[in-house]
Amino acid sequence: MLDHTPAADLTIDDMQTAHDRIKPYIRRTPVLRSDFLNDLTGAQLFFKCENFQEAGAFKVRGACNAVFGLSEDMAARGVCTHSSGNHALSLSYAAGRRGIPCNVVMPHTAPQAKKDAVRRYGGTITECEPSTSSREATFAEVQARTGGEFVHPYNDPRVIAGQATCSAEMLEQTGGVDAVIAPIGGGGMISGTCLTVSNLASETAIYAAEPEQADDAYRSFKAGHIIADDAPKTIADGLLVPLKENTWHFVSNDVTDIFTASEDEIVEAMKLGWKYLRVVMEPSSAVPLATILKNPEAFGGKRVGVIVTGGNVDLDKLPWLQG
Amino acid sequence: MLDHTPAADLTIDDMQTAHDRIKPYIRRTPVLRSDFLNDLTGAQLFFKCENFQEAGAFKVRGACNAVFGLSEDMAARGVCTHSSGNHALSLSYAAGRRGIPCNVVMPHTAPQAKKDAVRRYGGTITECEPSTSSREATFAEVQARTGGEFVHPYNDPRVIAGQATCSAEMLEQTGGVDAVIAPIGGGGMISGTCLTVSNLASETAIYAAEPEQADDAYRSFKAGHIIADDAPKTIADGLLVPLKENTWHFVSNDVTDIFTASEDEIVEAMKLGWKYLRVVMEPSSAVPLATILKNPEAFGGKRVGVIVTGGNVDLDKLPWLQG
Repeated sequence: MLDHTPAADLTIDDMQTAHDRIKPYIRRTPVLRSDFLNDLTGAQLFFKCENFQEAGAFKVRGACNAVFGLSEDMAARGVCTHSSGNHALSLSYAAGRRGIPCNVVMPHTAPQAKKDAVRRYGGTITECEPSTSSREATFAEVQARTGGEFVHPYNDPRVIAGQATCSAEMLEQTGGVDAVIAPIGGGGMISGTCLTVSNLASETAIYAAEPEQADDAYRSFKAGHIIADDAPKTIADGLLVPLKENTWHFVSNDVTDIFTASEDEIVEAMKLGWKYLRVVMEPSSAVPLATILKNPEAFGGKRVGVIVTGGNVDLDKLPWLQG
Repeated sequence: MLDHTPAADLTIDDMQTAHDRIKPYIRRTPVLRSDFLNDLTGAQLFFKCENFQEAGAFKVRGACNAVFGLSEDMAARGVCTHSSGNHALSLSYAAGRRGIPCNVVMPHTAPQAKKDAVRRYGGTITECEPSTSSREATFAEVQARTGGEFVHPYNDPRVIAGQATCSAEMLEQTGGVDAVIAPIGGGGMISGTCLTVSNLASETAIYAAEPEQADDAYRSFKAGHIIADDAPKTIADGLLVPLKENTWHFVSNDVTDIFTASEDEIVEAMKLGWKYLRVVMEPSSAVPLATILKNPEAFGGKRVGVIVTGGNVDLDKLPWLQG
């Protein structure tokens, strides 16, 4: 570990500090099981249901850690960010709980349910095109105008330390697992998972799951350096963004492997989750189950913690009911 | 309490015995919250999510108590029942766990998802017309042919004692509530709730929620004697059956009030549950939320335990997407 990214300085104490700070504002989400899905996969699956967080996603953990860690002076100027959805509404939720302004840049293609939720929590939206370049240009304008503290959706050690609290709870609730798997987009959840699991359960394998149609993390992992797509397209709208230096630190050092799934496999896994777990999981959250079904050699016979990252879905547009 | 139904002999010890007996086969389901739904209703709602039971419904509690309480001799002949759905698959699940046969009579109109689940757990289905009279005639034939022990879906003290374990967990998990509400069809869940709550939390109000289009329990409660419909029609397919003497015992003695909701109100509440709790609840399970929204004078400002009874839904036929 010769890199000098801020993430390299994170320790398990940062996770514990984050957990103590955010506990009043987050839920200790339950771990659900399904005998049917266990039979189907040949594994013992423990679904950590972050879709039951108030804002419907794990991202309230990182957002709350960033917002409630601000000094009074910094907090007074509010926070701002760009996000494909769940970080936007999680930061709005956190800012609303602290009573400070929140400005978010979102692609106009983001699901209506996520835009509605941002506004409900008191956030202000500025829309951009669904590309990394447009998002970054629009955000620069918003940040300059508002002067708010930038809380990046994942490339921020405060956010990573917050996300790390999820797998700490999961390890406690399950009594330990052989492997843990989470979706990977920008890498915030995986990085937090690496921080916790590599310190508290170093024998546990850490897998990431990614859509084939947005497989920049997979290709980066295999190449040994960050490769970014500019405008990937996948139903898993939470996973469109590229790795950055702080999440690459964890992905390159601690991840065991990355698996990918096709769009059809993601939709099929999503429907299985709704049917047999009876939880509303968004497409991004179904990618791990899709890859578990495809890779029995990695998961068969294992105890596997599966992070269900979010549940913000447009109920009027379910993918298995689209022509 | 001058009646002489078997239910009158049930005590809180029967609930505790049931809980000890069934714990290896059921889940201690989580209680979920939603700030949004609290704001919408003006109440503090605690959703006890029985849809997360393996068979997708609270009815595994009563079914397991009946099946695992059988002597070896009785168990060898198997069990049989009639049910509009969730009791059928719950009894199949319980019988499968004990390794004994299970025969069920179901209306041919029962959701395909429920029929599939019965067969997956090893149950054998005989179909009937969707009326009480057809169900009872078909069942008499099946019982005579198989010789299995009849486990009625609700009019059975063993089943009621099993369902009673649900609110015992809910009271522990919430630290107590001002009111509890559950859907009412045949009255098994409400009767179990009455057994537990009237003994362990006698100051807590007990409400039942029923579809307007199958309001026989409401009319019975107001009239002071059982009134049965023969063929009610409602989207809440778990609530089509009438009260019987054992459940009438609890409904007439311990229920505070019964509220009703229209079909549209039930669908609206179901969608709210999916969207803001992120749980897959079936229409029957949405009736309590529908009535809470309509009756703020009963629930406003109160801590309310809401039993989410089941989550077995045909995901290809969602009611808010039907023309």
